[in-house]
Amino acid sequence: MAFVQNSTPNTQIPILGPARFQSPLQNQRDVFVEDGSRVLLASMLDELQNPPATFELAGPRRQIFFNPTEIACGIVTCGGLCPGLNDVIRSVVMTLSYSYGVRRIYGFRYGYAGLAASQGIEPLLLTPEMVQDIHDDGGTLLGSSRGPQEPADMIERLQQLGVQVLFAVGGDGTLRGASALVQELQKRNLAISVIGIPKTIDNDIEWIERSFGVATAVEEATRALEAAHAEARGAYNGIGLVKLMGRYSGFITAHATLANADVNFCLVPEVPFSLAGFLAALEERLLTRHHAVIALAEGAGQDLIEGEVATDASGNVKLKDIGLFLKEAMARYFDQKGLEATIKYIDPSYIIRSVPANAVDSEYCLALGQHAVHAGMSGRTDMMVGYWNQHFTHVPISMATQKRKQIDPQSELWQQVLGATGQPRGM
Amino acid sequence: MAFVQNSTPNTQIPILGPARFQSPLQNQRDVFVEDGSRVLLASMLDELQNPPATFELAGPRRQIFFNPTEIACGIVTCGGLCPGLNDVIRSVVMTLSYSYGVRRIYGFRYGYAGLAASQGIEPLLLTPEMVQDIHDDGGTLLGSSRGPQEPADMIERLQQLGVQVLFAVGGDGTLRGASALVQELQKRNLAISVIGIPKTIDNDIEWIERSFGVATAVEEATRALEAAHAEARGAYNGIGLVKLMGRYSGFITAHATLANADVNFCLVPEVPFSLAGFLAALEERLLTRHHAVIALAEGAGQDLIEGEVATDASGNVKLKDIGLFLKEAMARYFDQKGLEATIKYIDPSYIIRSVPANAVDSEYCLALGQHAVHAGMSGRTDMMVGYWNQHFTHVPISMATQKRKQIDPQSELWQQVLGATGQPRGM
Amino acid sequence: MAFVQNSTPNTQIPILGPARFQSPLQNQRDVFVEDGSRVLLASMLDELQNPPATFELAGPRRQIFFNPTEIACGIVTCGGLCPGLNDVIRSVVMTLSYSYGVRRIYGFRYGYAGLAASQGIEPLLLTPEMVQDIHDDGGTLLGSSRGPQEPADMIERLQQLGVQVLFAVGGDGTLRGASALVQELQKRNLAISVIGIPKTIDNDIEWIERSFGVATAVEEATRALEAAHAEARGAYNGIGLVKLMGRYSGFITAHATLANADVNFCLVPEVPFSLAGFLAALEERLLTRHHAVIALAEGAGQDLIEGEVATDASGNVKLKDIGLFLKEAMARYFDQKGLEATIKYIDPSYIIRSVPANAVDSEYCLALGQHAVHAGMSGRTDMMVGYWNQHFTHVPISMATQKRKQIDPQSELWQQVLGATGQPRGM
Amino acid sequence: MAFVQNSTPNTQIPILGPARFQSPLQNQRDVFVEDGSRVLLASMLDELQNPPATFELAGPRRQIFFNPTEIACGIVTCGGLCPGLNDVIRSVVMTLSYSYGVRRIYGFRYGYAGLAASQGIEPLLLTPEMVQDIHDDGGTLLGSSRGPQEPADMIERLQQLGVQVLFAVGGDGTLRGASALVQELQKRNLAISVIGIPKTIDNDIEWIERSFGVATAVEEATRALEAAHAEARGAYNGIGLVKLMGRYSGFITAHATLANADVNFCLVPEVPFSLAGFLAALEERLLTRHHAVIALAEGAGQDLIEGEVATDASGNVKLKDIGLFLKEAMARYFDQKGLEATIKYIDPSYIIRSVPANAVDSEYCLALGQHAVHAGMSGRTDMMVGYWNQHFTHVPISMATQKRKQIDPQSELWQQVLGATGQPRGM
Repeated sequence: MAFVQNSTPNTQIPILGPARFQSPLQNQRDVFVEDGSRVLLASMLDELQNPPATFELAGPRRQIFFNPTEIACGIVTCGGLCPGLNDVIRSVVMTLSYSYGVRRIYGFRYGYAGLAASQGIEPLLLTPEMVQDIHDDGGTLLGSSRGPQEPADMIERLQQLGVQVLFAVGGDGTLRGASALVQELQKRNLAISVIGIPKTIDNDIEWIERSFGVATAVEEATRALEAAHAEARGAYNGIGLVKLMGRYSGFITAHATLANADVNFCLVPEVPFSLAGFLAALEERLLTRHHAVIALAEGAGQDLIEGEVATDASGNVKLKDIGLFLKEAMARYFDQKGLEATIKYIDPSYIIRSVPANAVDSEYCLALGQHAVHAGMSGRTDMMVGYWNQHFTHVPISMATQKRKQIDPQSELWQQVLGATGQPRGM
Repeated sequence: MAFVQNSTPNTQIPILGPARFQSPLQNQRDVFVEDGSRVLLASMLDELQNPPATFELAGPRRQIFFNPTEIACGIVTCGGLCPGLNDVIRSVVMTLSYSYGVRRIYGFRYGYAGLAASQGIEPLLLTPEMVQDIHDDGGTLLGSSRGPQEPADMIERLQQLGVQVLFAVGGDGTLRGASALVQELQKRNLAISVIGIPKTIDNDIEWIERSFGVATAVEEATRALEAAHAEARGAYNGIGLVKLMGRYSGFITAHATLANADVNFCLVPEVPFSLAGFLAALEERLLTRHHAVIALAEGAGQDLIEGEVATDASGNVKLKDIGLFLKEAMARYFDQKGLEATIKYIDPSYIIRSVPANAVDSEYCLALGQHAVHAGMSGRTDMMVGYWNQHFTHVPISMATQKRKQIDPQSELWQQVLGATGQPRGM
Repeated sequence: MAFVQNSTPNTQIPILGPARFQSPLQNQRDVFVEDGSRVLLASMLDELQNPPATFELAGPRRQIFFNPTEIACGIVTCGGLCPGLNDVIRSVVMTLSYSYGVRRIYGFRYGYAGLAASQGIEPLLLTPEMVQDIHDDGGTLLGSSRGPQEPADMIERLQQLGVQVLFAVGGDGTLRGASALVQELQKRNLAISVIGIPKTIDNDIEWIERSFGVATAVEEATRALEAAHAEARGAYNGIGLVKLMGRYSGFITAHATLANADVNFCLVPEVPFSLAGFLAALEERLLTRHHAVIALAEGAGQDLIEGEVATDASGNVKLKDIGLFLKEAMARYFDQKGLEATIKYIDPSYIIRSVPANAVDSEYCLALGQHAVHAGMSGRTDMMVGYWNQHFTHVPISMATQKRKQIDPQSELWQQVLGATGQPRGM
Repeated sequence: MAFVQNSTPNTQIPILGPARFQSPLQNQRDVFVEDGSRVLLASMLDELQNPPATFELAGPRRQIFFNPTEIACGIVTCGGLCPGLNDVIRSVVMTLSYSYGVRRIYGFRYGYAGLAASQGIEPLLLTPEMVQDIHDDGGTLLGSSRGPQEPADMIERLQQLGVQVLFAVGGDGTLRGASALVQELQKRNLAISVIGIPKTIDNDIEWIERSFGVATAVEEATRALEAAHAEARGAYNGIGLVKLMGRYSGFITAHATLANADVNFCLVPEVPFSLAGFLAALEERLLTRHHAVIALAEGAGQDLIEGEVATDASGNVKLKDIGLFLKEAMARYFDQKGLEATIKYIDPSYIIRSVPANAVDSEYCLALGQHAVHAGMSGRTDMMVGYWNQHFTHVPISMATQKRKQIDPQSELWQQVLGATGQPRGM
């Protein structure tokens, strides 16, 4: 047996200090996670390293760092909406209250802005009663916003309120912001824990098999694809074009293509295509079948569009509108060819990201929230909760933000997409 | 008792000739509609005329004009998609086949274009097996298109195929096209029946209480409004703007507003508003509640937008895009005021009109199709099937196309909207 | 013009006294219902009487009887669950609070039991905040129960709390209970208004075209029928049997049969059948098609089952279980015939009646609640809100409870069912 | 680094012979699975063996055993319905037809019965057109049945039709039947491949993380739990009891409990309870909260019910009806205690298992079908397709049927259930 001799990644989680208190969960359960329980990073034999790289297993510890009845906790949701946000908030509040007996839980409003003392936005004092039914609604009870805030500004607010564990729900940028906060806290020698809960409807964060909300988003995206299919068949040479979320990672578009039977072209950021190649393949499709459905990730084909690059409040590059670009390019092309074509363009993004979580995501968010609370109460910090090889894990934020998860064109996922759509391999 | 002494409308239905055959339904049912069964136009006492105006009651006649086993029938769907189109097609085919024993049923493809001999589009030969499950899908099996065709061109195709009853499913323009066809048929003394089945997702055809697909569309529209609500609450001064169908008649927007609890502004074509008045009211809302949901009919506020007026293939005026206009006007206004606001604009129209019919509409479409077939087999022509005062009716097309049905601002419907939204009465 | 010379029904609504106050709605709307606005009972010409029978039109009056800011109001929900109950509660509370300014609104818990002083069940004090989102959930916020209470016992509670308008949401028995309460109030000369909102998932109350919740129930019932269809086709000679609500009136079963395409036998209380006839027809179906779907109203075929008759707390006859009876009868029959058959029996009743209202019902419940409040504030009593010939109406409770609405086997509805199922006319 | 020194399981897959043909997929894709690609069985460090136990990675091989254009293939669905069956059928047919060019695909009807020559049930000849839309419907196009057939009888039919690859979709018993068939084929030296696709709505097959249909079933089960919650709150001391699938494994019940927020008692086969303990805990709940929701797996509490044990056609033990038993036990208990309680019992099993697959399951079924085809064409046999540690795998049937997958009461899953319900640990 031969191991890969790569450098093992550093998967160690910082901890604020040795456990000092018995977990109150000892009244509710017999089973706790033993130190040293580790989840393999490798899932294939040829990925196995020597020694094997592992994540720490998530779950409640028998001994914890904080005294739950004495501390305050806080939660903040950042970035764009995603199905399941309210489930996560609910789970964190319920677990803090009912499992650990924490008495003061602050819901910071409108993202990191609500956490910055200088902004003066009052937090909500969250109770189980307030969050009991919020998972029936999409969106986030707390509101959200984009963009970072000064660590010092946020620490001021945390200290005003006595918050000792902060749960930050958000994507790449939010997690980096959490790490920046941790660094400032360490500088000041403040024993405040910051736990990330990864939220990315694009599913682009590494070391978590599937982010919460993605299953729901795919389900909802298939509804838009069905509509596009009806529209496409409803006209002679009808074309249904659906733009879906996916700035740099086309997972929703690819999964929705596979979950739905009717997509003929799936366009994602990871697989470049030429406009001429795409239009020729589309023309071929129309001439033989007289209708076509296109699933388009918002970040696909950015190189095809001229123009300058702008950025939003979070520092994200503002994407150029590939949907309108393709719609117009198709209209022009078929007009020039003298081919009658009817194009219906659907952009369901805000509907997709705003629906309540489905059952799979609801259960998943419940667990994510619980494990975040267990991690925070144990004194861990600068980590996010992951899910890997059938287990919930503790992942260092630095490891999660190191690179973006994307579709590998050589992967079975993309090969399946090629098979399902029948689109040419290189357009 | 005093009657209104208005001129009674002419509700008489043209008939191709006296009934010549026993209905084959005599083997299946005991009950037939007796001649002289009439439905009151009036529903309020003060609308009652002397003599009372009435519609002919729809339903199967004991004696019919056509010999079902000898004739061919045809069906065509025109204009934009609408939930229930496939239910109607299915019902017409099933009733012709199983109830009357008609053996040749042509499905003309892509609207009136497929009915014009000169276009050379082959019709489908429809069978019960082909349409058995089509109601599970949105859209129309036959495809559709906009715009009229020459009556002579269509008659050529009808005669080529021996079609003696034509079912035309469509809106205002489609019904006018059907009437033009009837006039040319009468000129030529051809005993071909043309029966309209009114389809208008805007619900803007008179003398039918509610058009098919509208209940489904309202249901689906409320999903978009819920998404807008989640988006609006998800940001500080969040605004969710949803554009819904309704060129001249805001019924979907008004009904969805009432079916959903979260709309703050409902804007419809029938009730003009000033941009300044609307923006001031919206600002007031944001300052007090920090989020707002706007339901906007596509035909609302057209007078606010400068620019020339264009028309589409059906001769419909192309609406100016009030959604983008309002979105930009709001952004500019709040920018000038220095008020941070986050606007999310949702245009779910193609999703709404492409979903399969819900149960209420499915049952309704079944009945519309059956009554259309009964009317056609009895030799009636130049009429559409209506629903009025709890009964299905025969309505002369001329009467249905005389004027558009719109929301009366004095009606209880609109007063309810004002109450539900709390929006100012005159903005 | 000839009128039917029947005795005109008494449609007059009792009123507690002359209007004494200006309606606060004068600030919100310009349009009020004028006295003398009447809705025709007749919808067919040959039903028209001389003088025409009419209902009073529902809607807000310019002058009202009660001073809204001084009185307390109460609401109670009785009998079995029905989609839309929470929508009605919400609408009543919102209209009382926001439109009329009523400050004390009691929600009596668990039906009339919660209204009986002797039972000592504390009512909820309802506010707009409490009911804001309850329509997202099925069931009733207030709880419910069956059976009447002593009028004197209920009056004691109303007087303790100063309730001057009571809204009773329920069926036949609930409405009779409301009338009994009115009689006792009149005896005591107490100016307390009692307004009924008819709730019957069986749709068996007369003079209301369709009861709230029925559209939702039919929608949900079709899901069970689809499951039965999948089960039936999933086995050789598979039989899917679905028992639906409908004690004496088979409307849900009939409408679900028409909204779904797959039912082969629709059995309702109004149309008797013989066991032998049914089994023979079923056998015929199996031999030719090898699967069958049966939609069965719970009250169908009661005469086929031996045994004594019992009654429940509301005095309703306890139905014998036709579902199990038929299931066993079929199993025995095919066993004796040596015909392999697989029977799957589905009883979805509690799921159907517990779902939230769909959009059509939500809007309808909103209007019912508003009109009930308008009626109560105007001093009307001993009436229910109806919907008839496109208008909301005031219906005397005595008129609504006089006889049960049932399916007429001669009606187009039942004839359609026969056509859709293909079942024999007389089994 | 220390490995566990356990005996490594035999995960080797039998193969009919060396690959003889180039895969036609070489025209469609660049990527094939290399021999030696292996998936780790271990997911935790302490499970890792030396050498590590591994599964063969699923996926298309560059060289295959069968000549696709010459052979016939067959597919059969066995046992109870499960969401996704039609998706699997569709995927197998599409992959055989479009990817491999197989021209004759037989759909054996009604389970193994349709595969037994002696039964004389004609198979369907499946085409892409026939299966195009079947995934919109629940159930199985092919029908199903329980119970094994004689291997010799099945081989006769396979040879009559020239079937060389058989896909068997079913549970434990079906997979054992497939293995028995393989043994007989080997005895006769017949190069026919038998590939299993594991179907178990109970999720009780080992070495597959989650069986297809389970996510959909959990989603649908939460609807029944919501109904039970509405019913429970709708009455004073209301109890909603929902019986869910789960003969020996309570996964659906546990997952639905976690996905839904309202369950107070979750009862599964793996965790025994005493009737007295349960009733006392339930009484406590009613006295404090006045309503309760119980999620009950059908196989729970079998030891509480007296009576003999019977078996069905598949040899499965017929479960005693714990639902009715508990319902009656509760009624008796509260009656004796003089505590008014209203019990609503919901058995949604046939609805849950008959719905179409949701998006997650649709995509999953697509992949399962594709990988089954790849495996069969490569000449593998006596295996099923699994999913493990983020990869699709080949699992020897003997390994999959060795023991049943069940909930470990010490697992995080069950500990979560205890936390979510608050039910006593040992009742």
